[in-house]
Amino acid sequence: MSKVGIIAHGTIPFTKEDSKIESILHKSTNDLFQKNPNIDKKDIDAVLVSTNNNSKYLSPILSEMTGIQPKIAHSIESLCNSGTNSIVSAFSYISSGLADMVLVTGAERYDSPGQILEWDNSRGEFKHPIFWASIFSKSYKKEYDISNEELAIVSVKNHKQAKENPNALSKKTYTIQDVINSKKLTDDLRLLDCSRPCTGSASILLATEEIAKKNSDTPVWITGIGQKTTSAGFTKNTSLSSMESTRLAGKSALQMSNHNISEINVAEVHDAFSVCEPMALESLGFTNPGKGMKMIDDLYETNNFKINPRGGLIGTGHPLGATGISQTIEIVQQLQNSAEKRQTDNADIGLVHNMSAAATSSTVLVLEK
Amino acid sequence: MSKVGIIAHGTIPFTKEDSKIESILHKSTNDLFQKNPNIDKKDIDAVLVSTNNNSKYLSPILSEMTGIQPKIAHSIESLCNSGTNSIVSAFSYISSGLADMVLVTGAERYDSPGQILEWDNSRGEFKHPIFWASIFSKSYKKEYDISNEELAIVSVKNHKQAKENPNALSKKTYTIQDVINSKKLTDDLRLLDCSRPCTGSASILLATEEIAKKNSDTPVWITGIGQKTTSAGFTKNTSLSSMESTRLAGKSALQMSNHNISEINVAEVHDAFSVCEPMALESLGFTNPGKGMKMIDDLYETNNFKINPRGGLIGTGHPLGATGISQTIEIVQQLQNSAEKRQTDNADIGLVHNMSAAATSSTVLVLEK
Repeated sequence: MSKVGIIAHGTIPFTKEDSKIESILHKSTNDLFQKNPNIDKKDIDAVLVSTNNNSKYLSPILSEMTGIQPKIAHSIESLCNSGTNSIVSAFSYISSGLADMVLVTGAERYDSPGQILEWDNSRGEFKHPIFWASIFSKSYKKEYDISNEELAIVSVKNHKQAKENPNALSKKTYTIQDVINSKKLTDDLRLLDCSRPCTGSASILLATEEIAKKNSDTPVWITGIGQKTTSAGFTKNTSLSSMESTRLAGKSALQMSNHNISEINVAEVHDAFSVCEPMALESLGFTNPGKGMKMIDDLYETNNFKINPRGGLIGTGHPLGATGISQTIEIVQQLQNSAEKRQTDNADIGLVHNMSAAATSSTVLVLEK
Repeated sequence: MSKVGIIAHGTIPFTKEDSKIESILHKSTNDLFQKNPNIDKKDIDAVLVSTNNNSKYLSPILSEMTGIQPKIAHSIESLCNSGTNSIVSAFSYISSGLADMVLVTGAERYDSPGQILEWDNSRGEFKHPIFWASIFSKSYKKEYDISNEELAIVSVKNHKQAKENPNALSKKTYTIQDVINSKKLTDDLRLLDCSRPCTGSASILLATEEIAKKNSDTPVWITGIGQKTTSAGFTKNTSLSSMESTRLAGKSALQMSNHNISEINVAEVHDAFSVCEPMALESLGFTNPGKGMKMIDDLYETNNFKINPRGGLIGTGHPLGATGISQTIEIVQQLQNSAEKRQTDNADIGLVHNMSAAATSSTVLVLEK
């Protein structure tokens, strides 16, 4: 399989702004090209748009707005996981030889229709993901004897880290008591345990090894890819305290990259809700089942930004189609040693974990310098 | 680039049925597996859904309904061109080595939101594609001195051919006078010049060379791929009597397959409206500019099904996300000599042409035995 590198990226601050999706998409693409004036738009073979927005033909529209005439152009949707799915698709176009340079742009409005999965009737009255998140929280806390106060540290940590991310939706830090005292959504879920839908956009440019080396002094390589869909319906999950699709996707990605999890220096994991962070860390193998909170506590105590340096979904906000791309950009910046106040030590190998709909599907990427 | 074969397909009759999109998707997938009991669903690495439907997470939902747990799963949208875009994406997953077997299912409801491109304000009051189709017709007729009666033969021919297609929406044949006397939508467009939106679904299964040879006695190989997006807005077209994106996509696909257009024995071209068929034939190089109607007349007179054997979009109906897949299945059947009353002679090399939004983007595939 030929090598694929990430050679440029662009983003916009995540906000609650009410803009048209075409304009939101265009802004991060524009940021990418402004930061990389050496890139010739004529060389771009494919433009993939990652979004849950209902507007059609967004890739040709973005291409026309940007001045690109690609061969391949379409939108990709898989709820929260759309961004990383699009990156894997870009990888496949390049690796197969159908494209040499691929732009991937993800964007979402704060009122994304991807927040509700009408099909999943098992969610009953609760159309929003708070339903499964609440059941995950109850199950995880019970199985491993974790209190609400202990779980709240995820939100405290990620808001703290987001404060160093100029593009994050959250600008505040919170205490454990703030989390506990925030609006009670269910018995097991407070408002500050949740990532917030928002308006955001993020773009990356991928290329063949030859082009990557020519256009970037510090390309970042995608060396591992793992994906798995176990089901679509929340009640089909084999466990409510771990993520089976994440375990399988993580295993495949590490295997492809010839690394083991202990070699990963920095990672973005999908913390749509507090409980997702320890569950993801355990399912990926960063720590043993039930030990996720201990790992998170230790990182928080030592001010170590290893997990979710940009502030996770909880701190950065969650514009669905942009999230996976924003996560990937964070790891690229970490590996390029350009993450400023969020920079972690010795960041040589990084990991991105993204998932959809109660972890019924997951994508894991391994990135290297 | 490694070889990719089409090893199975399924479809449902195209109708005006009011069903849920999940059920429509599932029906053609089900048809595929019923016809091919030798396929083990465990071997399917990716499930790609082609649709303009606004429902989310359809690929994991279809996977769960079908009993597949794929690695890769998402929806792909690019208006009318979604199906062929999805087939090219499947090709890239296999050719890159990320997947060995990929299911592509396209489906649409008769009331698809993809029929209207809100963004293109140049269409003025006319939100439906009849606006650009009418301008194309006026321009083409004027440039090449073609009468309404002459153009009507496209619809007459394709309805006649659709009558031999048990899955076609149209069951009737029409005369030139029937077309001329059908409801006048604009000065240049009659109702029978238009393909009709409908409910439909079509599925194909693609695989590596090794798996294709093991699972099928008559695999069909994708040997040429060409894609081009020139713009998104109708008024950016350089000509209103030819299709620039089709010309470029066709050229690339033929180049990749090492064939020239005269070697193509049978083709599906995107006749969303009568005028699109001669324009596409000319832009693909089947005949010279202005000579498309002469070619169509000759085929009709000799009862030769070479172009649009299944009846085209005009005769078969146009369920957007399913169309490109249905076109591809027709060429597969032609090459496998299983197209029954629609069978053309010496069908060794076939071509599929699909496009979106006034041919602002096109995809061309070359298929071989």
